[in-house]
Amino acid sequence: MQFGLFGAAQAQRGGAPDVDSAAGFKDYIEYVIEAEALGYQSVFVVEHHFTGFGQVSATLNFLTWIGARTRTLRLGTAVMVLPWHNPVLLAEQAATVDLLSGGRLDFGIGKGYRHNEFVGFKVPMEEAGPRFEEAIDIITQAWTSNERFSFQGKYWQFDDIVVEPPTAQKPHPPFWQGAGHPDSIRKVAARGHNLLLDQFASLEETGKRFQTYRDAMAENGFAFHPSMVGAARAFFVTRTQDEKEAAVDRRIAAQRRLHAISQRPDGNNKASIMAYSDTRDASEESAMYGTPDEIAAKLETLRSMGIEYVLLNGGGTSRDNLRRFAKEIMPAFRTEPERAAG
Amino acid sequence: MQFGLFGAAQAQRGGAPDVDSAAGFKDYIEYVIEAEALGYQSVFVVEHHFTGFGQVSATLNFLTWIGARTRTLRLGTAVMVLPWHNPVLLAEQAATVDLLSGGRLDFGIGKGYRHNEFVGFKVPMEEAGPRFEEAIDIITQAWTSNERFSFQGKYWQFDDIVVEPPTAQKPHPPFWQGAGHPDSIRKVAARGHNLLLDQFASLEETGKRFQTYRDAMAENGFAFHPSMVGAARAFFVTRTQDEKEAAVDRRIAAQRRLHAISQRPDGNNKASIMAYSDTRDASEESAMYGTPDEIAAKLETLRSMGIEYVLLNGGGTSRDNLRRFAKEIMPAFRTEPERAAG
Repeated sequence: MQFGLFGAAQAQRGGAPDVDSAAGFKDYIEYVIEAEALGYQSVFVVEHHFTGFGQVSATLNFLTWIGARTRTLRLGTAVMVLPWHNPVLLAEQAATVDLLSGGRLDFGIGKGYRHNEFVGFKVPMEEAGPRFEEAIDIITQAWTSNERFSFQGKYWQFDDIVVEPPTAQKPHPPFWQGAGHPDSIRKVAARGHNLLLDQFASLEETGKRFQTYRDAMAENGFAFHPSMVGAARAFFVTRTQDEKEAAVDRRIAAQRRLHAISQRPDGNNKASIMAYSDTRDASEESAMYGTPDEIAAKLETLRSMGIEYVLLNGGGTSRDNLRRFAKEIMPAFRTEPERAAG
Repeated sequence: MQFGLFGAAQAQRGGAPDVDSAAGFKDYIEYVIEAEALGYQSVFVVEHHFTGFGQVSATLNFLTWIGARTRTLRLGTAVMVLPWHNPVLLAEQAATVDLLSGGRLDFGIGKGYRHNEFVGFKVPMEEAGPRFEEAIDIITQAWTSNERFSFQGKYWQFDDIVVEPPTAQKPHPPFWQGAGHPDSIRKVAARGHNLLLDQFASLEETGKRFQTYRDAMAENGFAFHPSMVGAARAFFVTRTQDEKEAAVDRRIAAQRRLHAISQRPDGNNKASIMAYSDTRDASEESAMYGTPDEIAAKLETLRSMGIEYVLLNGGGTSRDNLRRFAKEIMPAFRTEPERAAG
């Protein structure tokens, strides 16, 4: 198996003048630098805007900094929300990160789900899907065409362009998409993109989704490798039952906060990426919280279903948690990467 | 005096598979890392698109990488072309670079002048001015407002947003603008922005422009410091007359190429940033090419006119040139920075 991280640094506005507002960013960067040394393979970072609590907004800049401070760590976005971006500028930015990092970019993309972001950017929520699909087409062409081309889309037009610099990965950095519903998973496979599975679904459900994707990739004639599916899981290596319960409490509170921020005024927000464990039992089942033996048992279950790439979220930057997982759990599961993910 | 660098790395598409297409970027990065160690204060990097020869397009990503590899070097854009960018995304990206680098961003901005870029992005050239002005207003508000705000512009609208992360520099990173014509210089001073002077004007003309800006800043009630004006100059420390003539030849050829790429079909391109020395004598006068003594004489002239910040372009990444200037010329002129530029 391979292990990566996913999560979000924070840098809040408006603190006291003597507070280092970069502290949250710096702390996260040091955390992933240590993760690389401990054998973690990747970090996937969110993109969010106007949160009021300082989630990463300029994700590719944040990852560029991490790329310059690391050597092997893959640099993932989870996810770039395509409807916010000029797709050609985004293709240039992503290609630059890929080129400078020696081909370490994992380009996770999404259509967006937080209502307040659509309001902020004044993008109608019903355009999210078509804007997303159009942007994928442009970005793919931008990355793969060494010749000048024009693009006449519904939302974007470009005339006689060649997009520089070249990417390091050929034909281009892997696309990753999050999906949960079978139809959505099949759409990801129809594009031949890699798949991100969320941290909230049960182990059993996660296994089913993995199977749906593997089958759909085959039906579409794409080569499949387990490294093309990253299964997200919360993780916290605990020493006592009290520690475990406190961690579950923190996780449920964090979920509620994120759920609230993405809510539509009509309360109707069904994006699968925001599906979450709404009972304490479900939260305990989906999360890898507990002793090394308890966590190992869950990893065994994932591995038995074919899953070989787990993306871990510690809900913060606890070095102790990062180290305990790497030293007490990872050695029994980790194999050298056969090839770069994707 | 203070000395910085300006220029452009290149990473061309479509090379042979065994060619490292990142070589141009990497070479430039190593060049500026050495420059920092040698006492240069800053690097200003261009933004260009669709060139066919691989000029830097994702300038803030490129600078982010440089920022992570350096400690004190100021990270300048020369210039971000505002009409291409969603101003809020750009404000977020720039704030992220500023925050991660500990406040080292110098935010050079421009309205664009290359016809083929306007064509590529399908932005009417006559909108360049108003788009530029509107973007400055949004970006300034985005950086300075800790409270949510809405913006109703002609080209961009945003609703109930707060732009994260905060910048490290307060109230925000300095804006820099290039200008040559007195009216343009007075517009820069009306905003209180810093000034970039081009490398092609004669020493005498450069001195006049400096004076125009200093007077206009005073008239507008802004504090003035010589570090707010960066005077660009080509530089090449030569050992022989042959070396000097070859360097002038290369410079004239490079100017012609850049002039051609920015040309409008009607041949009418008057952007002052593209003004260039059209005779060999003018080129020799404006450029600091020659022996250390010849270059020192030109620096003396600039200093006598009040100019204390020179941005050097070696037309490549010659380490020998970089080192000779730093060791044989800089010590007689360089002072410790009184404060960060801007």
